[in-house]
Amino acid sequence: MSTQTADHTDIRATNLAAVLGHLRRAAPCSRAAIAAGTGLNKATVTSIVGDLLDRRLVRETQQTQNHVGRPATLLVLDGSAYATIGLEVSGRGLTALGCDAAGEQVLRWHRAGPGGNAGPGRTISALAALARRAITTVQASGRQVLGISVGVPGLVDRDGAVVLAAGLGWRDVPLRAELASALGRPDIPVTVDNDASLAVLAEHLYGPLAGTANLIQVTGDTGVGAGIIADGRPLSGHRGYVGEIGHLRLVADGPACGCGRRGCLEALASLPAILSRIDGLDEGDPQLQLDQLIQRAQAADATVTKVLAEAGSHLGHGIAALVNTLNPEVVVLGGAYALLADQLVPAVDKALRDATIAPDAGGCRLAVSSFPQTATPLGATAQALSPLTQGRLPRP
Amino acid sequence: MSTQTADHTDIRATNLAAVLGHLRRAAPCSRAAIAAGTGLNKATVTSIVGDLLDRRLVRETQQTQNHVGRPATLLVLDGSAYATIGLEVSGRGLTALGCDAAGEQVLRWHRAGPGGNAGPGRTISALAALARRAITTVQASGRQVLGISVGVPGLVDRDGAVVLAAGLGWRDVPLRAELASALGRPDIPVTVDNDASLAVLAEHLYGPLAGTANLIQVTGDTGVGAGIIADGRPLSGHRGYVGEIGHLRLVADGPACGCGRRGCLEALASLPAILSRIDGLDEGDPQLQLDQLIQRAQAADATVTKVLAEAGSHLGHGIAALVNTLNPEVVVLGGAYALLADQLVPAVDKALRDATIAPDAGGCRLAVSSFPQTATPLGATAQALSPLTQGRLPRP
Repeated sequence: MSTQTADHTDIRATNLAAVLGHLRRAAPCSRAAIAAGTGLNKATVTSIVGDLLDRRLVRETQQTQNHVGRPATLLVLDGSAYATIGLEVSGRGLTALGCDAAGEQVLRWHRAGPGGNAGPGRTISALAALARRAITTVQASGRQVLGISVGVPGLVDRDGAVVLAAGLGWRDVPLRAELASALGRPDIPVTVDNDASLAVLAEHLYGPLAGTANLIQVTGDTGVGAGIIADGRPLSGHRGYVGEIGHLRLVADGPACGCGRRGCLEALASLPAILSRIDGLDEGDPQLQLDQLIQRAQAADATVTKVLAEAGSHLGHGIAALVNTLNPEVVVLGGAYALLADQLVPAVDKALRDATIAPDAGGCRLAVSSFPQTATPLGATAQALSPLTQGRLPRP
Repeated sequence: MSTQTADHTDIRATNLAAVLGHLRRAAPCSRAAIAAGTGLNKATVTSIVGDLLDRRLVRETQQTQNHVGRPATLLVLDGSAYATIGLEVSGRGLTALGCDAAGEQVLRWHRAGPGGNAGPGRTISALAALARRAITTVQASGRQVLGISVGVPGLVDRDGAVVLAAGLGWRDVPLRAELASALGRPDIPVTVDNDASLAVLAEHLYGPLAGTANLIQVTGDTGVGAGIIADGRPLSGHRGYVGEIGHLRLVADGPACGCGRRGCLEALASLPAILSRIDGLDEGDPQLQLDQLIQRAQAADATVTKVLAEAGSHLGHGIAALVNTLNPEVVVLGGAYALLADQLVPAVDKALRDATIAPDAGGCRLAVSSFPQTATPLGATAQALSPLTQGRLPRP
């Protein structure tokens, strides 16, 4: 019996996702149009639409359609009653972003630190404090918080534990469990993912690259990682560890990498590796160092120009490995790479074209992130909304 | 109006694919069970089952189900009236395989040559002759030929043109169009794909790894390429050029590669690269050379053992790039790599574990192909059947 119940719940969720999908593509539309467009029978559609109305996820509007006949009651989506919260942990600090289910931004905060050396305990406390404040703010705006998702620069397993985040100095940190426990809100689901995997969701859903079916986002702010949309879907792999290109060995006996090997892409072209090759930057504050790097790059400082050209060439070889393997249409430079794009792109593009086997790099072009500061938390808000888009409704 | 017609055809195909999928998982089952399992209404299911009965794709059986009530008319799949033909072009010759829609092998032929130097014209003539003979044989067995698919070791675009197949010396060969024209059978669709992309389909559908959601097959018989199943689906990328790991640069200033670069994986670890490092093999016949290589490997010939250990280590580094990027559960060694597995696997496994960043190689294990000689044409028969499994019915 329990199997049958689970099956029926699954079918209901699948059908509900189909109705929501049709509304996203075709609203305003009538119940009859939804039935025709999804192949579901009208009784099923009426019942599902009733649930959506109860939860204020759709609204009815009286409107004449574009063809003959009496005015029909049409349905439109309405996401304003619900929101999700996206968080990011990076070497530069903590970021929180809130979006309602219609995609409107409700809040955006950044706080510096506690820094890579603070250890996971202090970072999780600070993250929980930030999340609690975000929940309070979202609720005060009259919205229900549907979920929280956190992006971390490292390997994240299916339970939301951070298996390895070399740039933060973390290993085997049960982040999801500890953050959920610190929040004490069992009604608000918490998930954790790799930062690049969340960042690519933002590019795939919003901005000029939205809908690109084969899309990769590469970031190097802490380590170097890639988020991958392949054939229209985010990749996650067997345990969730996709896009770990940071440890591709590009230079035999190259510089030492945090992983214990030498000559890894990360040791050659991550932001920390770039910063370590440039003298005269203020110690201690990574955000300030990045600002100084950008200023000197824009002023065509000779050392900075040379270091960025070398890093760009290595990055292009790393991206070529992705392009040969996955044949994306677009590779997006995200995070600090986006802020340094003018200096990086020529060298990245040359190395990419030299090192891909397909003519014209398989049709791949480079692009610059539209969300250099917020791709990860923005993608996280979308990720936290995915139970709803997959047809699992909030309690009415 | 045409849009609406297309939509309705799509919905019909989607529903039909759902009915076929339910039958594959759950047959024998009743029409009512299909309706319950798919969420389709009973009239739709009855109509679709009628089409399937007309085309002899399902049969009715009278049978008592495992619970109370009167005996129901149950339905089972029946693929025996239809077959597809899979072809492979490789450095070692041409292979043809015929399978009926139930997966039963109808024919299997191999012919040596015409060899990499024959040029595409002669090869396509020989391939067309082989295909014509296969069509005749399948039809003589009382089956209708639903389609033909061809695997080629190179980049194949969406039109079935071979953009580049360095191991065959081919560039910009419109193989699909020329083969279809040579066959003169517009009723039989012809498709062309990368050999590794077809080979991984065979592993995903048949044998001990069937159903593995994150599965990569690596072959090196001509170049070195990978076929990729990620999160349960074959990857194809923007233009169809996935899995091209052969030109990952592993050794700066390494041996010259056919692509014009140096130190590529393909120049270090493909079967031709391995054969070129071993003296005393008969010239000219690649199949005979492979047989001699296997014999000397099994006899622990010192040169062969050393060459295979080195090639295995390079191959493991190449596979590590795939594992870091895609986090597969299983990487299958296919083709000649499968025949040489005893000698290759220790070195491949060590390099793979050394060069992956995730603990325990992200849960990835190496496996040996169950179809070292036939994975590509077997996958091609499945590919040629995909219009049917996606719900596009043959004419009754």
